[in-house]
Amino acid sequence: MGGSTPVVQLLLTGNEIMSGDTIDSNSALIAQRLGALDIGVHRKVTVGDDPALLQTELAAMAASSDIVIVNGGLGPTIDDLTAEILAGVAQVPLVEHAEAIAHLERWCAQRNLALNAANRKQALLPQGAGLIDNPVGSAVGFEMQVGRCRIMCTPGVPSELDAMMELIISDLAGALEHPVERRIMRLQTFGLGESTAQQIISDAMPDWPEEVELGFRAGAPQMEIKLSISTASAEPAQRACREQLDALFGDHIIGEGDCTLAEKIIALLRAQGATLATAESCTGGLIASMLTRVPGSSDVFHAGFVTYADHIKASVLGVQPATLEEHGAVSEAVVIEMAKGALERATADYAIAVSGVAGPGGGSPQKPVGTVWLAWASQHAGPTQVHTRCLHWPVERSLFQTMIAAAGLDMIRRTLLGIDSEPRYFRQRRVG
Amino acid sequence: MGGSTPVVQLLLTGNEIMSGDTIDSNSALIAQRLGALDIGVHRKVTVGDDPALLQTELAAMAASSDIVIVNGGLGPTIDDLTAEILAGVAQVPLVEHAEAIAHLERWCAQRNLALNAANRKQALLPQGAGLIDNPVGSAVGFEMQVGRCRIMCTPGVPSELDAMMELIISDLAGALEHPVERRIMRLQTFGLGESTAQQIISDAMPDWPEEVELGFRAGAPQMEIKLSISTASAEPAQRACREQLDALFGDHIIGEGDCTLAEKIIALLRAQGATLATAESCTGGLIASMLTRVPGSSDVFHAGFVTYADHIKASVLGVQPATLEEHGAVSEAVVIEMAKGALERATADYAIAVSGVAGPGGGSPQKPVGTVWLAWASQHAGPTQVHTRCLHWPVERSLFQTMIAAAGLDMIRRTLLGIDSEPRYFRQRRVG
Repeated sequence: MGGSTPVVQLLLTGNEIMSGDTIDSNSALIAQRLGALDIGVHRKVTVGDDPALLQTELAAMAASSDIVIVNGGLGPTIDDLTAEILAGVAQVPLVEHAEAIAHLERWCAQRNLALNAANRKQALLPQGAGLIDNPVGSAVGFEMQVGRCRIMCTPGVPSELDAMMELIISDLAGALEHPVERRIMRLQTFGLGESTAQQIISDAMPDWPEEVELGFRAGAPQMEIKLSISTASAEPAQRACREQLDALFGDHIIGEGDCTLAEKIIALLRAQGATLATAESCTGGLIASMLTRVPGSSDVFHAGFVTYADHIKASVLGVQPATLEEHGAVSEAVVIEMAKGALERATADYAIAVSGVAGPGGGSPQKPVGTVWLAWASQHAGPTQVHTRCLHWPVERSLFQTMIAAAGLDMIRRTLLGIDSEPRYFRQRRVG
Repeated sequence: MGGSTPVVQLLLTGNEIMSGDTIDSNSALIAQRLGALDIGVHRKVTVGDDPALLQTELAAMAASSDIVIVNGGLGPTIDDLTAEILAGVAQVPLVEHAEAIAHLERWCAQRNLALNAANRKQALLPQGAGLIDNPVGSAVGFEMQVGRCRIMCTPGVPSELDAMMELIISDLAGALEHPVERRIMRLQTFGLGESTAQQIISDAMPDWPEEVELGFRAGAPQMEIKLSISTASAEPAQRACREQLDALFGDHIIGEGDCTLAEKIIALLRAQGATLATAESCTGGLIASMLTRVPGSSDVFHAGFVTYADHIKASVLGVQPATLEEHGAVSEAVVIEMAKGALERATADYAIAVSGVAGPGGGSPQKPVGTVWLAWASQHAGPTQVHTRCLHWPVERSLFQTMIAAAGLDMIRRTLLGIDSEPRYFRQRRVG
């Protein structure tokens, strides 16, 4: 591959991508991984499951690139054509690979499945191809050299592609003469919008250093801020930027890397030897689900209550029927009793309670769709304390549930960290 | 354009798409809109903001297509190159378009903005280009004929593209001699793998009709089967295929269109006037969350219990400490008591209970990671009935939670529908 940066092209296949039924996120994943080595993607081409078109395209790409990464078409069905196409371009026959059969047999055996004819098809690969290991799925990755181009064929299932890209990247890094390890510092935040963050940074830091590239990746519920550098000499500047970002919106920063709100909370609770309980109405179990996705969460999360109906709020959490009657289910009085009930019934140290109008139905002039009351309570090493807030977050139902569940978790995170200041999204979305 | 279907290619531009910072959903939107006219996208190419590369690509596409849709690069900044590129390919100069200036002036006036130099750049278009109206934004869409190819340039902002595509589609529909409406029947299934389904269909239906295109879209937890036809005359064949699929694995088919397991259950419960409760351990609230994502679920889902710790299973659901002691939390005896406790405490008609080892920790030789007990109970119009099953589903934690939550919902769906037969995934994954 020599010392200079290789020319890389991507070939993406699949009728479901061409028809728009599936949005391709795989090519973004591949590009991001290559970006970490400072290798850009020169061009990408997407075509459907059409053998003639695929073969013409792959042959043309191979003639004009150092590396072609093919994504998709590795599956067991008749419209999975990648092995056949590569064999055509390399002018070799398809043969059954013993190593691929062994991989498929292992995969099936772990799942108590029998290897069927459709699975066996996945082991038919171009003669001379090498395998790329797939640690998480059945699809067989493979690669071969055609002329001066290295062609790598990867699976369309995102988790399988992800695992395989790790291997490909470490392999490519080894082959580069002067590997640039792009150093990317990623900060996870909650409660900041991309354009707001950009504006605040531009205003506060007009002299942002050129060697630190600033990037944002908006997601729901979290937003990532990225600080990238290409040489080790820029590390002090990167650290200085990080410190300035901490000063600008430190309490909105959850952590570095892939850290989620739930992971952070589980770690903080474990460090305190404390437990958390949830009492959910409008989020319907999502807060509990976000917490329990984290391995080991059972140490600190023992109980969650999804009290969707009023009579369940009363019978399960001990909310007084009179409180429900007088204030309605979406009220400060009710979320306080929900939080206290959760604390007591779970004998937990912390609790979060939410009750709101997720929509599309159920709104009223006083409590329109998007209205929600949150209460967070603590009785860890002290008397019971309860705080509340009413927000108005009028977005589509499932985004509302996601953002409110995250806001609830964020209140617990702030409580555990002893952060007193009001988050930005409270100021923007608070009611009253 | 004549009577036959035009060859359409897409050219997508933008460094942010090439780097993977932005996931391209615009090409899916364009493809779906064209699909409604039965016009497929032949090929799409994505390149960064590189003038030479863009011009080579556009010239090659124009020479081999009836229509090229260019997306992106219409904005006011220096890396917005589309007008310049098209002028290069068409070999005409860039000139200021009076109509485009008028559009920009109107847009600015509505927002009390002054027309600045950056905005004015957006009115510099290839000589001879016609405008495509943008009802929602400032970007100026334009098109021109180059040789036998019609080149249409559209904005990268999704909402502006969306509005512009409406105009483009109605224009294209008028130009087609025999406009066709492609008829796609989509079936949602649970518990079938893509390769298994393909194999079963190939074995059972060797004479699959050519005019019905069969497609699969694997997802977690559901898999979609698609039957597409291009002419109304193929409708009887499509119906016949649907009937054969029903006979082959009808009880695995949840419904048509976008139907989810949770939506189907909510609809069935509502029709019966019945309610459902959940008692979750290893799925940690995910079943409740899937149910409550559905608007109106509060009518039939009143309560969910996330009983992650043993003492909570006892205190909240009434599981006997002796049962936990004797059988362990992941056991048939415990899920039966959990299901009965949920029925009783929620005064519900149906309940689902799950307890398993989600991993990565917590496994043992007797109960390895991936082991799970399910119990589903009913007391609707009759005495309490409880059924159980133990499965072994050894996949990564969050996929395990997703699949087990869906399996739990599927048991309720089958109970509500009175389906007696054992689902395929039970046969494959059952323990004992």
